[in-house]
Amino acid sequence: MPQWNRVVIIGVGLLGGSIALALKQRGLATCIAGVGRNAQRLQQAQTAGLIDETYTDIEPAALDADLVIACTPVQQIAADILSATRWAKSSTLFTDVGSTKAAIISELQGKISRGTFVGSHPLAGSEKSGFENARADLFENRLTLITPSENTPNQAVEQTKAFWNSLGAQVREMSPPQHDAVLAVTSHLPHLVASALAANTPQDHLDFVAAGWRDCTRIAAGDVELWCQILRENRRPVLQAVENFAKVLQSWQTALENDQPEQILSLLESGKQIRDQAVGN
Amino acid sequence: MPQWNRVVIIGVGLLGGSIALALKQRGLATCIAGVGRNAQRLQQAQTAGLIDETYTDIEPAALDADLVIACTPVQQIAADILSATRWAKSSTLFTDVGSTKAAIISELQGKISRGTFVGSHPLAGSEKSGFENARADLFENRLTLITPSENTPNQAVEQTKAFWNSLGAQVREMSPPQHDAVLAVTSHLPHLVASALAANTPQDHLDFVAAGWRDCTRIAAGDVELWCQILRENRRPVLQAVENFAKVLQSWQTALENDQPEQILSLLESGKQIRDQAVGN
Repeated sequence: MPQWNRVVIIGVGLLGGSIALALKQRGLATCIAGVGRNAQRLQQAQTAGLIDETYTDIEPAALDADLVIACTPVQQIAADILSATRWAKSSTLFTDVGSTKAAIISELQGKISRGTFVGSHPLAGSEKSGFENARADLFENRLTLITPSENTPNQAVEQTKAFWNSLGAQVREMSPPQHDAVLAVTSHLPHLVASALAANTPQDHLDFVAAGWRDCTRIAAGDVELWCQILRENRRPVLQAVENFAKVLQSWQTALENDQPEQILSLLESGKQIRDQAVGN
Repeated sequence: MPQWNRVVIIGVGLLGGSIALALKQRGLATCIAGVGRNAQRLQQAQTAGLIDETYTDIEPAALDADLVIACTPVQQIAADILSATRWAKSSTLFTDVGSTKAAIISELQGKISRGTFVGSHPLAGSEKSGFENARADLFENRLTLITPSENTPNQAVEQTKAFWNSLGAQVREMSPPQHDAVLAVTSHLPHLVASALAANTPQDHLDFVAAGWRDCTRIAAGDVELWCQILRENRRPVLQAVENFAKVLQSWQTALENDQPEQILSLLESGKQIRDQAVGN
């Protein structure tokens, strides 16, 4: 018997579509309902076999749902979850895939009348978007962070873990502010820096960029509206991360200005050491 | 008949080895001599079929050479070229593959008694090093910048162009200072920023880095000694590039501090526009 009877995915894009595909392929859901603004796109996702039912309104989709996952842009997630709770059951589990957590969780604080919300953030994705790029194995052997609050019932936390584990993901718990501070450094700052590095390159220099520039700026091609939302939602931790990064740049400026080979080497070595450690060299 | 009778490659690593392989595969040289400090490594390169003769001293290798290419670290190139000129012919063409140009060319100014030097910089490479990673197609359809001075004889410029064209590369001419200013922005700044981004990431955050962080920091794994030399040789243009980049970061800080969505969007759009243009989206 499938683990879930009725699963509702709000926002059937790359992440929502990949969750749907993974649930289908692993036989984990009896029925998957997809919710979106664009009925035609939803029908295409249904024809492609990702979802079983399509809805342009959240409330009727969420009726009788066992699991609701909000895969919409971060500034919309709290409102979408609240819409879904209206017709849900007291046993419904709500979660999301948002890249920021503290703002969403504080918006939902004390407002969920039925069911339980546990924030999630799968560290998986792609610069590609849309359900056409969805992959059933997107979460396999990747980390998903879940961010329960102190008063989140233990059973809901365990259910959320079991859900991500069932898609092949490993799960780690963090508090919402801890999540946001870590992601500001590991994800949001790199995006901002990639964007600044691209923007800093004059057009007439573009013939002369090589592999290094291309790698460093790849994520700057991402969806600007989505990233604007992420950076605004997490602006305090991001500002702190930019400030720390600017201090490293300042050390570089001093070392180059005074032509200090030991300082320059030591800066390069700090970077290489962390990089090598991250990729297990 | 091969284009070159005797070619000397000083430094048989990734770039030197790839030039050797390309010359061999295309039948462009009668004899390729490899020069290096480590006789055992050179013999391995000879056994692997990259070079025909091995030398640990530059002078005897350069005797009777038609073409000498210095593929050593940037701070060593001028001295290596000067050693090679001692026993060379007046018709010998000297070039290099160094990532910086103005310092090398000013060091050589007025000191070359025999033959002609034309600076080159192929925009090709890899984070891998050593002749084991050499590829005959490394320069194919890639750009090589050549940096003649005002008094470089036209024939030597044409010969240098023809050399790189014969390996499959496209060639563009630039003045040495122009080259260094462009590369500071398109290559040296990205390296410094990738390194700073890695160094700014605390060790206990490394489990939570995703694809974006990995892309942005990849080049930080490069050889620290080599990059220390490149950044020192080109430190004035690099400092200028860091200063301009720091101004973009400053705009980011202001926009986030004041939570200005239009400003944040506009910054993201500038980055995306340049990035998309660079990769032809």
